[in-house]
Amino acid sequence: MKKILNNPDAFCRETLEGIILAHSDKLKALDEDLRIIVRNDKVKEGKVGIVTAGGSGHLPVFLGYVGQSMLDGCAVGNVFASPSAKKMYHMISQCDKGNGVLCLYGNYGGDNMNFDMACEMADMEDINTMRIRVCDDIASAPKDKKEKRRGVAGMVFAWKIAGAAADKMMSLEEVAKVTNHALENIGTMGVALSPCIVPQVGKPTFSIQDDEMEVGMGIHGEVGIEVCKMLTADEIVKMLLDKICEDMEIKRDDEVAVMINGLGATPLEELYITYRAAHKYFEKRGVAILTPYIGEFATSMEMAGMSVTVMKLDSVLKELLEYPASTPFFINANR
Amino acid sequence: MKKILNNPDAFCRETLEGIILAHSDKLKALDEDLRIIVRNDKVKEGKVGIVTAGGSGHLPVFLGYVGQSMLDGCAVGNVFASPSAKKMYHMISQCDKGNGVLCLYGNYGGDNMNFDMACEMADMEDINTMRIRVCDDIASAPKDKKEKRRGVAGMVFAWKIAGAAADKMMSLEEVAKVTNHALENIGTMGVALSPCIVPQVGKPTFSIQDDEMEVGMGIHGEVGIEVCKMLTADEIVKMLLDKICEDMEIKRDDEVAVMINGLGATPLEELYITYRAAHKYFEKRGVAILTPYIGEFATSMEMAGMSVTVMKLDSVLKELLEYPASTPFFINANR
Repeated sequence: MKKILNNPDAFCRETLEGIILAHSDKLKALDEDLRIIVRNDKVKEGKVGIVTAGGSGHLPVFLGYVGQSMLDGCAVGNVFASPSAKKMYHMISQCDKGNGVLCLYGNYGGDNMNFDMACEMADMEDINTMRIRVCDDIASAPKDKKEKRRGVAGMVFAWKIAGAAADKMMSLEEVAKVTNHALENIGTMGVALSPCIVPQVGKPTFSIQDDEMEVGMGIHGEVGIEVCKMLTADEIVKMLLDKICEDMEIKRDDEVAVMINGLGATPLEELYITYRAAHKYFEKRGVAILTPYIGEFATSMEMAGMSVTVMKLDSVLKELLEYPASTPFFINANR
Repeated sequence: MKKILNNPDAFCRETLEGIILAHSDKLKALDEDLRIIVRNDKVKEGKVGIVTAGGSGHLPVFLGYVGQSMLDGCAVGNVFASPSAKKMYHMISQCDKGNGVLCLYGNYGGDNMNFDMACEMADMEDINTMRIRVCDDIASAPKDKKEKRRGVAGMVFAWKIAGAAADKMMSLEEVAKVTNHALENIGTMGVALSPCIVPQVGKPTFSIQDDEMEVGMGIHGEVGIEVCKMLTADEIVKMLLDKICEDMEIKRDDEVAVMINGLGATPLEELYITYRAAHKYFEKRGVAILTPYIGEFATSMEMAGMSVTVMKLDSVLKELLEYPASTPFFINANR
């Protein structure tokens, strides 16, 4: 294991310390152990809170999206592990500004269970909550079992939409409605070229041959659809977008936002070669890309590979996607 | 070689196509072959032009810094290779808005030679130019031979300062003066944990053991000061900052900007663990960090490792560093 760290057991703690030291003007931790990160600026009274939670090892996911017009808070677990229900509850109670809190998180067993418990605790304190699970990874279950799909990079689009809706002072029910509408129009699929190493484990999460890639792998190394020989960038993009477009019924004259997300070790050059292929794919089919997001948005530490996320846009989603947002890890002002 | 691409010979071309397709609102190519990238927005008449050039494989360096209050143009070479003098000249002539052009580039043989020729061509057309070579890599030559040092991530700070000065409508001589002042106060040093692979070569640029790192390596895999056993994050940072602070004579009560730059494959988590170490290092010595920049600013494709850049600040540099800037790859509005 070749990592720049001090002690594998302190990996999360020291990452969080670094983040708070660097961004104390924008972020703060609620507890001594730094496992609840919230905005450090003044949040409007009455604004619906948007919160999430999840394991470490995916930066900028999850806590990197805490900031203006995105998330109000994030509970942080160990690498690839859910934080506790108690931490989630503490976060929810702090992020309630009187009109309730939307918990918007990836569809994983631990996070689901803990948010269920946390929202029960909030309910006993008369804090209004709603829960929405992001299930955007189309490789992880068939469409008729969409509720079984994992949440991957499409979470970022979901937070963007929900965060903008909340900043526009929509009610909790309205924010939840437009977020669900966004999620019906978001699909992701990716390929992994290499494993990553969980610091406390010290060994690769899986093994793969030098000429192979895993199609549809999850961001924790969950098994995908198939292992196949390396393809060209154009072939990979066609394979992913054929599946995404079929699943989402994308057709001529649709408008989409596209996210080309590097999983950690893939150079930006390759992500732009990927974007080129996606652009040409959609151009050929008469689909317009309105907003490209290209970079590392949801990673698996040093995993090589990438995912493509597509969000089908209408006027409502377009306006909320373009709404300015700013966190220490993500700025939407420039698009 | 496991890369997401179509054809190694088309690596640069397709990367550039992807960039232009994604960011055509902000960037455009001057020639059919896309090797000169300039701003696509209206540049103020009379503003001094700031341009650079260099090989591919370092995104966001070089062309990623073309944008508002940063670079006006960038000539792009093949992977790790200088573009031609002719391309540089064409760029210079297009970026002159009547008050001359500052060529601000990394200190590499090919770039030096070609910018010399390009500026001669510009001179014949009565375009006023000045040249400044960035020599921030303190590992690459002793301080009394600073002119032999390579340019690495410190280039980004240099462009930031020069770009802000030009946007404030300083004259060419004033922009050059403040840029040289900045460069006297910028130093960088890094460690490499793994090699990268030039697509057209197909083999790693060097080999290194699983428990070793190369200290002071250049961003093209140029040999560093020594190969040593892996150290902890705190030890690596102490080693690098001891050398940087000695070289730059940084002392108690100084104020600095710090850039923790990932070389390509190093997870953001590890960069924040690195930042934590740097923050504590400076805190202990009574040096204040005013602006942390943490992420991938100057890469070597999929190389693992990182560099630390320090810029010693005074009121002039502070103002220019904080001046808003915006490119498709870099936004300074948020600091």
